[in-house]
Amino acid sequence: MPFVSVLLASALIAPQHKYSAVTTRFREDGLTTLGANVFLSQLCLGIGARLAGSENAAKAVQWGRRTMDSLGLDNVHLTPCKVPHWVRGEIETCVAGGMNLNVCALGTSPGTGPEGVTAQVVEVQSVEDVEKLGNALKGKIVFYNRPFDAALVSTFAQYGKAGDQRFRGPSVAAKYGAVGCLVRSMTGSRDDVPHTGATRQPGIPSATLGLLSADRLSASLKRGQVEATLRLSCENMPDVDSASVVGEIRGSARPNDVIVLGGHLDSWDKGQGAHDDGAGIAQSLEALRLIKGLGIKPKRTIRVVLFMNEEISGTGSRAFAAELQASGQRAYAGIESDSGGFAPRGFSTSYKRLSGLNKWLPALSEFEAEKFTAGGGGADVAPLGELGAVLFGLQPESQRYFDYHHSDNDTIDKVNSRELELGAMSMATLAWLISEEGL
Amino acid sequence: MPFVSVLLASALIAPQHKYSAVTTRFREDGLTTLGANVFLSQLCLGIGARLAGSENAAKAVQWGRRTMDSLGLDNVHLTPCKVPHWVRGEIETCVAGGMNLNVCALGTSPGTGPEGVTAQVVEVQSVEDVEKLGNALKGKIVFYNRPFDAALVSTFAQYGKAGDQRFRGPSVAAKYGAVGCLVRSMTGSRDDVPHTGATRQPGIPSATLGLLSADRLSASLKRGQVEATLRLSCENMPDVDSASVVGEIRGSARPNDVIVLGGHLDSWDKGQGAHDDGAGIAQSLEALRLIKGLGIKPKRTIRVVLFMNEEISGTGSRAFAAELQASGQRAYAGIESDSGGFAPRGFSTSYKRLSGLNKWLPALSEFEAEKFTAGGGGADVAPLGELGAVLFGLQPESQRYFDYHHSDNDTIDKVNSRELELGAMSMATLAWLISEEGL
Repeated sequence: MPFVSVLLASALIAPQHKYSAVTTRFREDGLTTLGANVFLSQLCLGIGARLAGSENAAKAVQWGRRTMDSLGLDNVHLTPCKVPHWVRGEIETCVAGGMNLNVCALGTSPGTGPEGVTAQVVEVQSVEDVEKLGNALKGKIVFYNRPFDAALVSTFAQYGKAGDQRFRGPSVAAKYGAVGCLVRSMTGSRDDVPHTGATRQPGIPSATLGLLSADRLSASLKRGQVEATLRLSCENMPDVDSASVVGEIRGSARPNDVIVLGGHLDSWDKGQGAHDDGAGIAQSLEALRLIKGLGIKPKRTIRVVLFMNEEISGTGSRAFAAELQASGQRAYAGIESDSGGFAPRGFSTSYKRLSGLNKWLPALSEFEAEKFTAGGGGADVAPLGELGAVLFGLQPESQRYFDYHHSDNDTIDKVNSRELELGAMSMATLAWLISEEGL
Repeated sequence: MPFVSVLLASALIAPQHKYSAVTTRFREDGLTTLGANVFLSQLCLGIGARLAGSENAAKAVQWGRRTMDSLGLDNVHLTPCKVPHWVRGEIETCVAGGMNLNVCALGTSPGTGPEGVTAQVVEVQSVEDVEKLGNALKGKIVFYNRPFDAALVSTFAQYGKAGDQRFRGPSVAAKYGAVGCLVRSMTGSRDDVPHTGATRQPGIPSATLGLLSADRLSASLKRGQVEATLRLSCENMPDVDSASVVGEIRGSARPNDVIVLGGHLDSWDKGQGAHDDGAGIAQSLEALRLIKGLGIKPKRTIRVVLFMNEEISGTGSRAFAAELQASGQRAYAGIESDSGGFAPRGFSTSYKRLSGLNKWLPALSEFEAEKFTAGGGGADVAPLGELGAVLFGLQPESQRYFDYHHSDNDTIDKVNSRELELGAMSMATLAWLISEEGL
């Protein structure tokens, strides 16, 4: 791209619209401060991975509270919830046919004991395969190996199509007496990094394989029987007390209409939980900072929630919804960011008359959120939907999300600070528009 | 993002539309083959950087011809053009006030001779500053240091606003007797990698500074006078013969209506020219491969052009336009990819009735190219516009482009193979739609 052709592109400068006075100030503050990146750095580099129930998760709660206080938010408090306490431990190995495979335990998996489990490996492509094989799997290690469907454009659709292997697979295999479970990682990234994630209980010792390890194991099985020894030192401990972190800018005209912005504060214990979901936390806090920085009082209450324990059992989001319901306030809208900190493309929404939202697109398009699509908001605002809130989910560019998701690769260097900020400004703009104009 | 919430997102699966029979096949072939990435690997890893006039550029021409032959394209040939032959040489250093600054020569800059030029540095923010200072700059080294305007969302707008310093700055400083020129790199990326690029001649020895070096030099100048020695061993050699590479799928009904797809084969001599513009080359070839793979004959001729010498003086694009004009065929449309291999967002176009193109958006949206915006096509198809062609430019996500552009950072590991392929499929779809339905 030579310089001269850019000179002609005056269309690249943001056009004026009805909301420009506000969006211009969001843009000038946001893109020069890059506040979302400051929050994300504190969370990812200052604390790191923060599995629900862990010491780091407790640190993240305290950090969230301090951060909201320093932003001068109203009504800063913790909303308690019980969370599971699963500990990975130090040992996770799988030796199969003489090969060391790259594995990591699935979240909430029981451990194997120090001897590990040793059994013949049976490769399957689906939960249905397992149901068919039934009791023939007794005493075996079941290996789910159906890859992401590369032909799908949406990586979330790929995940949706493959994810039952991880989520339901081990518990179904357990039903037929399998003694262990291996699952091809939920990613399309051709490296050997295993991607963890939740799996339904009661299950059996279960781990995911990096894609190269999964391919090696599969190739080995094509040549004949393979015996594997899986050793996992992970352990489920008693539930512990934790909390979501809540703060707000109180509405000036309709303070009982509550617009919730949020992401989840917990992460998996791999990497730094940068895209999942440090990004959503950083963007939600930054949205409030931007709105507060405008010095104007929104008509409706804009409340930020750093939800605890999204990844395992959603106790934080349900406790928050119960608190809101008990308060007598109205769950007016919920805006969630939990699809990564990539450049925004729009919002999914449960709002029925999609075209009724088009009036806001000139403002949102300034930050590259250019469309509304039918859908939900996300796991953490879903309980607010049951209370009547209209839900919105920030939809960023999706192609790279599952390269990092739930793995050692999910670190802050994979997040572009301007792309992250564009999402925060989109959320601030949407919250402000809902506050001022209603739904 | 937990698995369960994805299960609800059936909207993620591509909806059916009038063109689905074709786009589905593009999708299934493209996303499983990732052919654009194969072409890009051959170009970036097999050849590498390929400055017009260099041995690597000549290799790239031969590779392009072989590749088109292997795709079974019609009318594969080279369209000759003269190109400049500038050689960077081995030495580029700048010592200022005892600091070693990270510099690289601007393309077509004259060298300094082995002694270098030594002079007092004068920092300016603009070409206008230089015009004001005038003869006070005689014998000085002028240092242009106006940064990218971070508050602009479009990085191309940032480039457009800052780029005159690099493109015109040295020649204007030369007019007033300056003996050397330093320019802050055209990037917002806070590292110390210098970004090269073209500068107008006649000029003076000129180099760009990595951002950290520019900031250090500026800080030093705030403390007092700074003398710098700039040494550049670059050299302008006599023009050499080169060529653009051309091939096509001949139209079945209107073969004289020519739809051109292209990018530029030359790059700067830094990095591997991956995003600029290996991506455009790979996507253009892949678009033809995908169309050819369908086994149907397009009504109009779809011609792919790997343009030579876009970066320095555009001789390849003008020679191609002249060839097309002389052939008596009609320049019907030009589709260019030269904005990086990131996820597509739409096409800019010179077509006047933008809304008339909306009928094609269901097909293009399948590959995330979701809108048409008013604009040009790019530097290489611009001469076709003068012949009457409607121009289109692939518009990918822009935030990261100038982190890599014209620098050592522009390497293939910065390109996501699925994002690259989505652009190729968008181009294939648009070319096919124009071919079948006309403009």
